[in-house]
This record gives sequence, C-alpha cells and structure tokens, in this order.
Amino acid sequence: MIYFDNAATTQPYPDVLETYQEAAAKIYGNPSSLHYLGHQAKRVLEASRRQIADLLNVKAEEIFFTSGGTESDNWALKGLAFEKEQYGKHIIISAVEHPAVKESAKWLGEHGFTISYAPVNSKGFVDLKALADLIRPDTIMVSVMAVNNEMGAVQPIQEISGLLADKPTVTFHVDAVQAVGKIPVGDYLTDRVDLASFSSHKFHGVRGLGILYKKLGKRLTPLLNGGGQESDLRSTTENLPAIAATAKALRLVADRQAAAVSGLIQMRDLLYEALSDYDDVLIFSGRDEQSVPNIVTFGIKGVRGEVLVHAFEKHDIFISTTSACSSKTGKPAGTLLAMGIPVKSAQTAVRISLDDDNNMSELEQFLTVFRQIYADTAKVR
Amino acid sequence: MIYFDNAATTQPYPDVLETYQEAAAKIYGNPSSLHYLGHQAKRVLEASRRQIADLLNVKAEEIFFTSGGTESDNWALKGLAFEKEQYGKHIIISAVEHPAVKESAKWLGEHGFTISYAPVNSKGFVDLKALADLIRPDTIMVSVMAVNNEMGAVQPIQEISGLLADKPTVTFHVDAVQAVGKIPVGDYLTDRVDLASFSSHKFHGVRGLGILYKKLGKRLTPLLNGGGQESDLRSTTENLPAIAATAKALRLVADRQAAAVSGLIQMRDLLYEALSDYDDVLIFSGRDEQSVPNIVTFGIKGVRGEVLVHAFEKHDIFISTTSACSSKTGKPAGTLLAMGIPVKSAQTAVRISLDDDNNMSELEQFLTVFRQIYADTAKVR
Ligand SMILES: Cc1ncc(COP(=O)(O)O)c(C=O)c1O
Ligand SMILES: Cc1ncc(COP(=O)(O)O)c(C=O)c1O
Repeated sequence: MIYFDNAATTQPYPDVLETYQEAAAKIYGNPSSLHYLGHQAKRVLEASRRQIADLLNVKAEEIFFTSGGTESDNWALKGLAFEKEQYGKHIIISAVEHPAVKESAKWLGEHGFTISYAPVNSKGFVDLKALADLIRPDTIMVSVMAVNNEMGAVQPIQEISGLLADKPTVTFHVDAVQAVGKIPVGDYLTDRVDLASFSSHKFHGVRGLGILYKKLGKRLTPLLNGGGQESDLRSTTENLPAIAATAKALRLVADRQAAAVSGLIQMRDLLYEALSDYDDVLIFSGRDEQSVPNIVTFGIKGVRGEVLVHAFEKHDIFISTTSACSSKTGKPAGTLLAMGIPVKSAQTAVRISLDDDNNMSELEQFLTVFRQIYADTAKVR
Repeated sequence: MIYFDNAATTQPYPDVLETYQEAAAKIYGNPSSLHYLGHQAKRVLEASRRQIADLLNVKAEEIFFTSGGTESDNWALKGLAFEKEQYGKHIIISAVEHPAVKESAKWLGEHGFTISYAPVNSKGFVDLKALADLIRPDTIMVSVMAVNNEMGAVQPIQEISGLLADKPTVTFHVDAVQAVGKIPVGDYLTDRVDLASFSSHKFHGVRGLGILYKKLGKRLTPLLNGGGQESDLRSTTENLPAIAATAKALRLVADRQAAAVSGLIQMRDLLYEALSDYDDVLIFSGRDEQSVPNIVTFGIKGVRGEVLVHAFEKHDIFISTTSACSSKTGKPAGTLLAMGIPVKSAQTAVRISLDDDNNMSELEQFLTVFRQIYADTAKVR
C-alpha cells in the first residue's frame, strides 16, 4: 500500500499512540479535581502546553487546546467577531481558505457581519495590494492561511504582517494546519499574528485535538462555555491523553523537520519532472520556495479527478481529489477556481501529498502506474 | 488507592483503550476520502454510530459526535437559539444545570435572548408547577438535566415530557451526561425529548468525545462550520478512534448496568446508614428512587469541603467537593444553594461518587478513615 494522502490525515506515530495510551490508562484524574490525581493530571497538562509553546516559540499561556483545526478556526473567527462587534463588523478572509474558515465567515455574514474575500493571483497567492485595498476603518479581522491545503501554496504571512503593522485594531488570524513540519515556524507565527490554528492529526498526532495560539492580552469570546477550563476560555474536561500525544507528535515532527523537508523536496522534484514529460498533464502546484515540498496537484486533460483516484486505488495507491472535505460533493477545488483555472481543468485535479515516511521506491511505483493510467485514458482525452 | 470521584471522570476500561489503539493505528484513513482507506474508516464510523443508537433506542441518523458533554450542551442551546430566533427568544433552564448549560444560557442572555430559571424544591427536584408557569408563547426551549452532577437527583424528565406534550414549538433538551449506566435509558430519552447530551469519559470511555442526540427532523444551526462532516451539522475530521472506543464503552456499561446498579445501591445504602449515625453529619443527597445509586453528598457541620477532601487524600482516598469544575474556585455547590441550603452548610459539602468497580472493602476503609477524621475535626465544630 502506498499512502500519498497525508494532507488529508497522517498516520499517528507509534510513540504518539504509546503516549496516548499511557496517559489514558494512568493519568485519568480530572485536572480540575482538588486531590492528588487531579494535580498529577494538571501537571501533565501544563507540561504538554509548555512543550508545545516552546516548539512554537510562544508562551505557554498563549496555547489553548481545542477539538481540531475546525474548532480552532471557528473559535478564532466567531470568538473574535462576537468579542469585537461593537467596534466593527467587517472581516476579510482570503478567497482560498479552508471551509472551516470560509463557512465560519459565511455564518457570520448571515449574522450581521460583512465578509470580503481577498483574491489570489493565477498561482494561488494572496494579492497583497488587493488585500490592502479591502481594509476599512471597521475591519476587525484578517484571516489568511499559512499553507493552502489544495495545492500547497505558502501564503505571504510575513508581508501581510508588515501590511498590518500599523493597524493594531485588526486581528490577524492564520490557519497554520498544513504548515507544521513543512515550513519554519517563524514564517507563519510572526510577531504580528494574533491567532493561529493547528490540528494534531495533520502532523502524526491524534484526531480530535487542535490548538489555538492566542497572543497574550488578545481578547476572545469563548465558543464553548461551561466549567471554566483553559483559563475560562474553552470549557470541557481536558482531553489529557490527546494533549500529551500531541505534544509528543509536535516534538517528533520538529526533530525531523530539516531532514524531512530535504527528502520531500527530492521526491517532489522527481514527481514534478516526471509528470512534466506528459503532454496532457497539467500541473497546478508550484515547485519553488513559495510551495510546501509535500504537495503536488495536477490533472490529466479531460479526465476527472475521481477517475484518477479510483484508477490508482486499484493499485493500492491512495491519493485525493485536492481535499478530503470536498471529495464527496464532487465539487472542483475552490482554490483552483479562485486562481482563475477554468472549471473543466479544475475538475481534473488530484492531489498527491507526501510524507517523509514515503520513499523513492514508492514514487517510482507510482510513476509506473501513472504511465499505464495515462495510456489507458488516452481514448477519453 | 480508593477512587470515589467517578462523577468527575471514570477510568477508561482496558477494552475501550484497546479499541482506541486498534482504530488509531489501523484505521487511519479520513472517512471523507474517496479511496478504500476512506471507505473503511467510514464503515467503522457508521457501525459505531449504529451501535450507539441501538443502545440508546434511537435511530443512527439521530446520533452526532462532538468533543464532549460541554460541546453537546453548547451546541444544543446555542444551535437551537440561532435556529429559532425568529420564532422566539425565551429559554428556560433549571436552576441546577451544569455550567455547560448554565453558561451557554448566560451567553445567550447577553446576546438578545431571555433566560428563565426553573426553581427546584428543597430536595433538588425541578418544581413542575413553577416550570409550567414559566412557559410563554415565545419560549423556544426547555433544558433540564436527567441527573444532577452535584447530588445525584434524578429529574422528572417523564413529567416534563408530559407537560410539553401539547407544546410542539418548545424544544426539549436533556443533559444526560450523569445518567448513562445509572438509570434506564427510557427514563431520560423519552419520545418528547428533542436533544440530549452525553460524554464518553463519564462512562469509562475516553475524554474528548461527546454525543448529541438530535431527534429526526429537528433543525439545529451548527456550532462548528466547515468541511461538512456529520451531515453538514458538525464539521471536523471525525475522531474515529474515540468514536469506536465510545461505542465499546457504552456497550460494556449497558451490559453491566443491571448488576452495577444493584451493587451500587448496596454500597450507597451502607454509606448512607453509617454516615447517618454521626450527629454532626448533614446528608444532602437522597437515597430513594429519585436519586442515582452512585452519589452521596454530605458534609460535617463547620468543616469546609476542601478540608475533608484533603484529609481523605492523605489516606489515598479520592473524593470531591461536589463538582470538579467548581472545586478550584472554592464556590459552594450551586445545586445546594438552589435547594435553599444556607451558604455555610453548602460549603461543607463533599461528593462521593461510586462506580461498580468499587467494593464493600473500600467502603469499610473509607468509613474507618471517616471515623478518625470526624474525631480529628471535633475541635473546630
Ligand atoms: C488548512 C486546513 N484548515 C483546517 C482543517 C480542519 O482540521 P480538522 O480536520 O482537524 O478539523 C484542515 C484539514 O482538514 C485544513 O487542511
Ligand atoms: C451534568 C454534566 N453535564 C456536562 C458535563 C460536561 O462534560 P464534559 O466534561 O465531557 O465536557 C458534565 C461533566 O463535567 C456533567 O456532569
């Protein structure tokens, strides 16, 4: 089996599951309990928070645990909107955000807020000039993802940070879900970023655990009210085993990052070059510094993405139609449409998302199978 | 070690953790993915949903997964409020709800809704007559918990169901978090109940996984917008290992329920009788049919609950000051105050919450230690 769908979800590292298991079986006290079992759980909770904060170069008090990237995005957008509604009701998001941001914004748009969409250029990067022009006196938030999940474009977070430097009333949120382990932390967690979202299962952690970075002093209305956990900002009995497992995963990924990235670049470049040799292949993603090294998005002219996914599946090779979320609805990738790619081309797109556990021999198998699929689909092209 | 804090959280069953581990390691596909690994994950997801639905006597399409009891409560209250705001803005909750319900209602109260609190009588039960009187033409929701977490009172869900029988525009939400495995499902999931909240870690499942029962056809605005999972009502990559583990836990607890309850009643009665022999002991909880068999809430006159918790802790016995959530704030149990118990008495309260894994010998040890603590605290009384 060859798993090339790592942007949809990664396989948890065995060490991560061991940490989960250990904490679940042994540290079962409720961190809010007054007694020793509670203190013990609280200690592990805070040690995990500190470890994650260190790896992200931020303070422990700036790390909040959620149930995933989606909750982090919803909390960032809705929590900020409700917090600041008396100051302004205008929110800007990029045109290529993940549905967790896009649909949260849409919901806010139906509840009294105005949403503007910052366009992207033909390569999928947010247009800085256009973004600057959208900012109004009542703009309370700008949300731009660090790495696009459908084609791996690394957005200009540093430049947007510069743009917002003299606009302290605009909160800057970054969806960093696809960035972890792929680009340096400093590239997406700049001093100007106020809020950032993370998801454990995208970096070999566990499903159901997300992180929201919230800059010290930044105010945010809770999405989950209740018993007062997480400094009264996100209530519920803390998911300690998943939190400890996530700290472990982030450390392992950080340790491997340098080696992983150079391996990924090699694999990506091989793939890129091999695919470029085919006349009817369209490559949508980039291969420069502004693209993560693990994602290649491409299509065969006239062949729908689903057809390719199923053709590869017959050979036990698992790839995706640009995103897991949109795959079942059969809609073409929103990112490609926002880039101005015609619907017919966008519908051909598939996404290969590599991991450093993949290797050259898997890539070669993939390319052998691809040659065959390409030939088989010749008649429909 | 003697763990008598099972209402705060339970220890996950070893079989439950095994199920988690197995699913996490082997079924790591994203259920939304088009390929075989996605289908496999989707199958396990839907099998778990069906199993849980069967155990709760409802339909699979009525079961939604969340991150815990708190999210289920927040979603029920806020989701219903936003869904029905054009029809009315009045919500009734009981005076003894868990903070997850109470604080959600309070938040809605700050955002245009009006909240009324149905009082309880001196024994902690919702006053049906008073509740009926609170219902207005613009009432959109009534939320009453099945079992109170601070003293185990079983609320009259059947009677409230009767009361609401001819009021189809009022949505009935039941927080059933403390009811699972303690009272029959039919007692809290009546035909009239529209929404009900559950939390896996309270029944030997895992932390970070909750359930919302939503009656077929009932409309609810999502709290988490995004990729469209859970019939587009609760987005995020599904926490499959935790969901499979929760299905397992619910089955194990259901299998044991009859035997567990009779064992718990025996232990509870022994405790109740032994404590009644002490002149300066106040027992706040009941021991009849209207109380769950696993909770005894009591205090020693003049001795603050925290003092008792720490005194027992020295003997490796873990109990709680009525709820884990409120324990750190040092506030007395809201339920006891709502029952009309004076602050000074309420501050003495501790909660013993048993599990069927506890046994008579643990109870005897507890009572031996209690005799000593009672003697030691004589001078402060
Ligand atoms: C960019 C981006 N944001 C948010 C999410 C949502 O994360 P989760 O599945 O943990 O809710 C994903 C993945 O699905 C993503 O790729
Ligand atoms: C009655 C009740 N409702 C809701 C909750 C919240 O559950 P969770 O900790 O899973 O968010 C609890 C427990 O803390 C509870 O006892």
